[in-house]
Amino acid sequence: MAQALAIDWPRILGTTIKILLLLFLAFALLRLGGAAIDRFLQERDRLGPMNGRRVKTLRTLLKSGFKYTIYFVTLVTVLNLFGVRVEAILAGAGVVGLAVGFGAQNLVRDVITGFFILLEDQFAVGDYITIAGVSGTVENMELRVTRLRDFSGQLHIVPNGQIKQVTNHSRGNLQALVDVGVAYEENLERVMTVLQEICEQVARDLADVIAEGPKVLGVVNFGQSDVVIRILAYTKPLQQWYVERELRRRIKDAFDREGIEIPYPRTVVLNMSGGEKNAQVSGW
Amino acid sequence: MAQALAIDWPRILGTTIKILLLLFLAFALLRLGGAAIDRFLQERDRLGPMNGRRVKTLRTLLKSGFKYTIYFVTLVTVLNLFGVRVEAILAGAGVVGLAVGFGAQNLVRDVITGFFILLEDQFAVGDYITIAGVSGTVENMELRVTRLRDFSGQLHIVPNGQIKQVTNHSRGNLQALVDVGVAYEENLERVMTVLQEICEQVARDLADVIAEGPKVLGVVNFGQSDVVIRILAYTKPLQQWYVERELRRRIKDAFDREGIEIPYPRTVVLNMSGGEKNAQVSGW
Amino acid sequence: MAQALAIDWPRILGTTIKILLLLFLAFALLRLGGAAIDRFLQERDRLGPMNGRRVKTLRTLLKSGFKYTIYFVTLVTVLNLFGVRVEAILAGAGVVGLAVGFGAQNLVRDVITGFFILLEDQFAVGDYITIAGVSGTVENMELRVTRLRDFSGQLHIVPNGQIKQVTNHSRGNLQALVDVGVAYEENLERVMTVLQEICEQVARDLADVIAEGPKVLGVVNFGQSDVVIRILAYTKPLQQWYVERELRRRIKDAFDREGIEIPYPRTVVLNMSGGEKNAQVSGW
Amino acid sequence: MAQALAIDWPRILGTTIKILLLLFLAFALLRLGGAAIDRFLQERDRLGPMNGRRVKTLRTLLKSGFKYTIYFVTLVTVLNLFGVRVEAILAGAGVVGLAVGFGAQNLVRDVITGFFILLEDQFAVGDYITIAGVSGTVENMELRVTRLRDFSGQLHIVPNGQIKQVTNHSRGNLQALVDVGVAYEENLERVMTVLQEICEQVARDLADVIAEGPKVLGVVNFGQSDVVIRILAYTKPLQQWYVERELRRRIKDAFDREGIEIPYPRTVVLNMSGGEKNAQVSGW
Amino acid sequence: MAQALAIDWPRILGTTIKILLLLFLAFALLRLGGAAIDRFLQERDRLGPMNGRRVKTLRTLLKSGFKYTIYFVTLVTVLNLFGVRVEAILAGAGVVGLAVGFGAQNLVRDVITGFFILLEDQFAVGDYITIAGVSGTVENMELRVTRLRDFSGQLHIVPNGQIKQVTNHSRGNLQALVDVGVAYEENLERVMTVLQEICEQVARDLADVIAEGPKVLGVVNFGQSDVVIRILAYTKPLQQWYVERELRRRIKDAFDREGIEIPYPRTVVLNMSGGEKNAQVSGW
Amino acid sequence: MAQALAIDWPRILGTTIKILLLLFLAFALLRLGGAAIDRFLQERDRLGPMNGRRVKTLRTLLKSGFKYTIYFVTLVTVLNLFGVRVEAILAGAGVVGLAVGFGAQNLVRDVITGFFILLEDQFAVGDYITIAGVSGTVENMELRVTRLRDFSGQLHIVPNGQIKQVTNHSRGNLQALVDVGVAYEENLERVMTVLQEICEQVARDLADVIAEGPKVLGVVNFGQSDVVIRILAYTKPLQQWYVERELRRRIKDAFDREGIEIPYPRTVVLNMSGGEKNAQVSGW
Amino acid sequence: MAQALAIDWPRILGTTIKILLLLFLAFALLRLGGAAIDRFLQERDRLGPMNGRRVKTLRTLLKSGFKYTIYFVTLVTVLNLFGVRVEAILAGAGVVGLAVGFGAQNLVRDVITGFFILLEDQFAVGDYITIAGVSGTVENMELRVTRLRDFSGQLHIVPNGQIKQVTNHSRGNLQALVDVGVAYEENLERVMTVLQEICEQVARDLADVIAEGPKVLGVVNFGQSDVVIRILAYTKPLQQWYVERELRRRIKDAFDREGIEIPYPRTVVLNMSGGEKNAQVSGW
Repeated sequence: MAQALAIDWPRILGTTIKILLLLFLAFALLRLGGAAIDRFLQERDRLGPMNGRRVKTLRTLLKSGFKYTIYFVTLVTVLNLFGVRVEAILAGAGVVGLAVGFGAQNLVRDVITGFFILLEDQFAVGDYITIAGVSGTVENMELRVTRLRDFSGQLHIVPNGQIKQVTNHSRGNLQALVDVGVAYEENLERVMTVLQEICEQVARDLADVIAEGPKVLGVVNFGQSDVVIRILAYTKPLQQWYVERELRRRIKDAFDREGIEIPYPRTVVLNMSGGEKNAQVSGW
Repeated sequence: MAQALAIDWPRILGTTIKILLLLFLAFALLRLGGAAIDRFLQERDRLGPMNGRRVKTLRTLLKSGFKYTIYFVTLVTVLNLFGVRVEAILAGAGVVGLAVGFGAQNLVRDVITGFFILLEDQFAVGDYITIAGVSGTVENMELRVTRLRDFSGQLHIVPNGQIKQVTNHSRGNLQALVDVGVAYEENLERVMTVLQEICEQVARDLADVIAEGPKVLGVVNFGQSDVVIRILAYTKPLQQWYVERELRRRIKDAFDREGIEIPYPRTVVLNMSGGEKNAQVSGW
Repeated sequence: MAQALAIDWPRILGTTIKILLLLFLAFALLRLGGAAIDRFLQERDRLGPMNGRRVKTLRTLLKSGFKYTIYFVTLVTVLNLFGVRVEAILAGAGVVGLAVGFGAQNLVRDVITGFFILLEDQFAVGDYITIAGVSGTVENMELRVTRLRDFSGQLHIVPNGQIKQVTNHSRGNLQALVDVGVAYEENLERVMTVLQEICEQVARDLADVIAEGPKVLGVVNFGQSDVVIRILAYTKPLQQWYVERELRRRIKDAFDREGIEIPYPRTVVLNMSGGEKNAQVSGW
Repeated sequence: MAQALAIDWPRILGTTIKILLLLFLAFALLRLGGAAIDRFLQERDRLGPMNGRRVKTLRTLLKSGFKYTIYFVTLVTVLNLFGVRVEAILAGAGVVGLAVGFGAQNLVRDVITGFFILLEDQFAVGDYITIAGVSGTVENMELRVTRLRDFSGQLHIVPNGQIKQVTNHSRGNLQALVDVGVAYEENLERVMTVLQEICEQVARDLADVIAEGPKVLGVVNFGQSDVVIRILAYTKPLQQWYVERELRRRIKDAFDREGIEIPYPRTVVLNMSGGEKNAQVSGW
Repeated sequence: MAQALAIDWPRILGTTIKILLLLFLAFALLRLGGAAIDRFLQERDRLGPMNGRRVKTLRTLLKSGFKYTIYFVTLVTVLNLFGVRVEAILAGAGVVGLAVGFGAQNLVRDVITGFFILLEDQFAVGDYITIAGVSGTVENMELRVTRLRDFSGQLHIVPNGQIKQVTNHSRGNLQALVDVGVAYEENLERVMTVLQEICEQVARDLADVIAEGPKVLGVVNFGQSDVVIRILAYTKPLQQWYVERELRRRIKDAFDREGIEIPYPRTVVLNMSGGEKNAQVSGW
Repeated sequence: MAQALAIDWPRILGTTIKILLLLFLAFALLRLGGAAIDRFLQERDRLGPMNGRRVKTLRTLLKSGFKYTIYFVTLVTVLNLFGVRVEAILAGAGVVGLAVGFGAQNLVRDVITGFFILLEDQFAVGDYITIAGVSGTVENMELRVTRLRDFSGQLHIVPNGQIKQVTNHSRGNLQALVDVGVAYEENLERVMTVLQEICEQVARDLADVIAEGPKVLGVVNFGQSDVVIRILAYTKPLQQWYVERELRRRIKDAFDREGIEIPYPRTVVLNMSGGEKNAQVSGW
Repeated sequence: MAQALAIDWPRILGTTIKILLLLFLAFALLRLGGAAIDRFLQERDRLGPMNGRRVKTLRTLLKSGFKYTIYFVTLVTVLNLFGVRVEAILAGAGVVGLAVGFGAQNLVRDVITGFFILLEDQFAVGDYITIAGVSGTVENMELRVTRLRDFSGQLHIVPNGQIKQVTNHSRGNLQALVDVGVAYEENLERVMTVLQEICEQVARDLADVIAEGPKVLGVVNFGQSDVVIRILAYTKPLQQWYVERELRRRIKDAFDREGIEIPYPRTVVLNMSGGEKNAQVSGW
């Protein structure tokens, strides 16, 4: 047994040197390859016009693919230097294979999903999207992960395999929606006229961010204390909250001016200071 | 080892050229094939009348199938040029196969589900549907994904394999439903007569969007402060909200005119300003 | 490589023609087969009486089975024409097999479940059922999917494999249940006598839709402001809501007449306008 | 190709006749077999006393097993007539096998679970049980599905594989529980004496449905406006609601008579009509 | 074909007789084996003292194991008589094997989990436990299922494989916890002295069920209308509710006597009968 | 057949004796092995100092491993005596193997997770931890299960495979957090001075359990009726609740003394005893 | 059988000695290896500048990989000494292999995910992150587990395979958000001017922690009793709560000074002390 544990120092040294060389080579290749891809795409760009987004997609695809290939080849070579026959393991179907196969399926799914997201142009860097329960602006896309930054400043790193469905907020006009409750006593005609005037003003003043002018939709609910009226507009992506705030501010001003009330909650109280029931109970 | 890492420049150059050629060919084929399918269907159309929706389905099916076939063949050929024996991997059952097989099952499921959605005509471009928890108008259908745009302007991209069941809102008349609460003091007969009149008016005025005239259903609930009466109509798809708003507006007008009250929440208050319990506590 | 990409025009033409012929044949067969099944069942019907539901089931089963067989055979033949050896793939166990096998298991499950639903007569066209979280009237049943239309007019398309358990509302009498809250001050005996009278009236007047006369069950809850009394009836399928509305309308009328109160929420208020605590805080 | 699609009419006719014969035979066997099982069990019954539930179980088991065997044999024979080598498919492990194997595992699980439910006598026809989220009276049990009818009249059809755990309400006495809230001002001793008297009365009057007399358990909660006292009894299965209603009715009567109050929600209000804060705001 | 369907009456008769004999044998063996195990354990018991729970466990284990072995052997023999080569199916890996293997994994998991529950003495008959979301007293344990009866009298039958984690309430003292809210105006020192006295009384009076005397923990929350004080005790298993009710009863009594108030919900009301806002709206 | 069922009494007797011997041997070995491990670790302990927790871990590991090895060997030997070729089954891949393999994966996962918990010293006996949704003090750890006792006295037995992530409350100081609401009318400066004084007192008085003195964090919320101020401290493990109660008690005292108010919920009431709306409705 | 159970004492002794030697060797190697890696990285560091985080990552990777390799080799060697042919089991595909393969997949997934987290630098020691539902500061990262300490002082140990997506709070500025409700009666212009002044002050005073000055966003909601105005800032990581508290304190001060009201909840009360309904009911 002592023999089995004897240490073959020269072989260890040789292997160590080989590994260091290999890692250096891999590192150099990664640098060179990335630069080559960039230069190639610039050349391509100069020859003729090409859609910017497509170029970006192609670059991500090429760079990511190149990077993971280098990683994989380096890993396999290093493991071979240690005497681990990776090819044999990958071809076999024993326990190791089973465990690795199951454990790695997430990895495979990440890459496949990432590939299709790129191929189908589901979202691009800079889009504001919702995936896997988090919303944010895409900071970076790779074959395996997508990085989002949300409004609160947090960075979300989502493996692509976790992306079941994509909601993209940057591919079309978005809806600005303001619900206003007015008292049951108000004259609906008059309220709607006032609101319609505000809508027209806003449509004029914010013409640069509004796609489809705000309009008064009508009575969408009989509330407990108010009649709820809805105003609707379509705006440039991510401008909807700004338009809503602006609409609210102007409505508040106009209602103050016109004497239209946004009602507080109301309750009808029936007072009962004695009577049948009290008579039954002793005392209080 | 140096030898193993030596670079065979001519072979790399040759392979690069072959790949570029291949990609160009694939791109050209995609363009030509798509055009050919369009022309073929137009010819077919001219020969005799054919259901428009079926033509659209056939086109999507043919184009999607053609596109994915080209993708797949190109990928396999490129990988072969790099020396990756795709056929061997696909036929084998080693770890790679296992991982890829598991990872790819989502892809297969997407395509199979997409195929059946098209075959069974579950929905078509332009329908308003609910799938996988999101609702919207179908903008685009392919074998792998469906794109929906909802009312708020967001674009949802749903892989077909995520679609468990489909709810189609555009295949028949939809229900418009308005619940009105009136005070317990009101005379139900009179209230219902007023509501019935409104229903008849609306049925006349909005005849173009209403399929089955609004009618007063009856008392559906004894609320805490009101008796709830339901009005029901069937309308053309997506017109239900418009009809509901119109009904609400007219009910508000009629009730104002007729002096029928939509009650605020009510509470009976029994005042108790002293007594047994207070006597026990010291002070207040 | 150029050679590998050379195009064998005559072969392409020949294949195209074969495919068109095949598709035409498949289409024709579908039409003829469907008609044949219909005629066969009509003949069978004329020979002797047979349960209508069984005939319908048999027709669905035969037509669906026939349709999917034709689809499958056509697909396999077309793929063979393209040189895809379907039989080999289906027999093998490589990666493609694995992915397809996993991806297709939903399809298999749909058909198996659909087969058992038909065989065990779990529901039939026209029944009002609840499956997979949606309720509606069955519009259409096939081996793979079931189509429901709910009261709001939406069409739900549910793959049969999604059906875990079936709730059928059309196989027996359904329960109509009305809970009435009366004030604690009321005399329970008198209230119950009034309710019992209404029950008897309704049993008489709606005898055609009521299976088991409404009866007063008793006090089911001590509410915060009311004693809750329950009335129960069994009605013909889907008539329960109508009976409930009718009961509610008559109860409201009778209570108005008899001076029995359905109470508003009540609160006992103990006023405290000064005292120990207030004395502690400075000011207000 | 035309040849491949030529139709061998005589063979089709022959096959059709064979299938019809086969279906007729299967139908006849099902009828005869069912009758034979019934007669056998009646004979067995006459020979000596045997537990009725066991006979029922045995009958269900035998009939279900017989039915599914006939179905299976018929299906295999019909498929063989069409040239589908079922035995080969079942023995192989190709894609079809994989898909069918996965798809059919639900079926297998249904039958295995159903077998154990019968074997272990977990419930029988007529029991009121809760399985897979639905409650109802068992109308019918088979190896694959269980049919329940709930109180609202709906029929639930549950595949046995969906049954994770069974709750049987018909295998022992059930609990009737009434919580009564009395005002903090009441004398607890006196209230409990009154409740104890009611309990004794009920135990006497409803002796036929009560297993363990109702008793006053004590104070189970200090509510916001009341002290909550609990009364507990054990009754014959499904009689618990009746006993609870009866207890509630008598408690209401006794409390009216004895002048014990079931309190309304109470709130202490501290009035503040001016002061420091108001002074700060301009105006109102 | 007629030949294939010809019926070999003598063979059927012979097989039937064999099966009946076999079932009778199996039945007899079950009875004899059960009795033998009981006698063996009694003998063993007489020879020397042995932990009662261990004997119970051993008996359950032996009887359950014996029972399932007999079932299994009988089933295999019967199937062999019908010509179903069970051994071949079990050894093979075809579709049937796959489906059965997947379908039966629940069964295997039930037995393995049950074996470990017995081996590790996680709970015993008579313990009050919580498993798989239901609580109750263990009525019966077997290798495959556990039967619980809860306080409401319902019988829960839980397959052991559904038991993820066990909560045993009968293996140590349980906590009795009473939260009392007193008014902000009360003197905390005095309240705590009163409570402490009650705790000491209870510790004396209920010494037989209390393990660790109730003590006043302190202020655990500043409520909206009260300061919440917590009392804690440890009691014999399942006596905690009794001790809590007793504590509550005595606290109510002591507070009545001492004039300490358990406060009703309180609200400060600022009245505003006119002012700036009202002036703006027309009318009311 | 009678022959096949003949009973070979001598062989049964022999086997029974062998099994009893075997069980006795296994039992003896378990006892001896456990003692040997204990003695070995004591010897080891005497030779040189060794971390107490590591010794405990090593003991659990050795004893658990030894116990399960003995169980496994005994089981296999017994099964072999019955003629069940365990090795063959374990090596094969038939249906039995599949079912057992799936069924046993939970067992394997339990042991693997348990091994890593021990190896990585995630928690030790006596720690207060949260795993798999339950919290408690670790009473006992083994390779397969962990036993926790929570504050309410219940014993939770959690298979290690159910432990997804561990929260250990005994590896560092814990946070004590008290939120105090004061009236909007209070002077924040003064309130904070008072609170700061209490913090300093507590830091002095409870120095033995406090790690990082309580400090006033500031205004964390504008409540409906109060300004919420937060106080924060870090304490020795499990002392946080004690420190919180102590802080609350002293705050109550100080506020009483200083006349600072913890406000009741407040509501502004606008009285309206007549007006436009009332005028519309008939009557009240 | 006695023979099979005979104990080969010399072999047991030899094996025990070998194992102890082996464990000692493994322990020594772990120490030496760890030190060697540290020294190597220090040397590397001295040669030239290198990103600190990358060095840390490399160290974790090398140490973790080294540790698990030693564990694995030791385990396999020990098992071989006991005669367990690990290599054969790993290569085979029997039941043991299946169970181990499934059971170990979590382990494999942990390591693969951990490797990618390190490789992609998703988070580093000291970052404040949210993973798998818990938030905290990273105390320690390894290939298999990540240790977090949250603000309440608890230590969370999360296996890397449980990490679906990472939210990193330390990679950019975070948002501080304060919502202020002001009474409907207030003049919005004036309120906003006051708030804007506070924002400017805070931006000046807290310039060291604020990245993007707080600004008044506008009206984000019409509340029931207040108009809600939002203030927004971006701060250095984890300083957002401090900035929010500071903003709130200053707003409270300024509003006190300026007489701007943060309103209490308001309710409009319509008193009704008699009338139509009361007239109907007898008595009170």
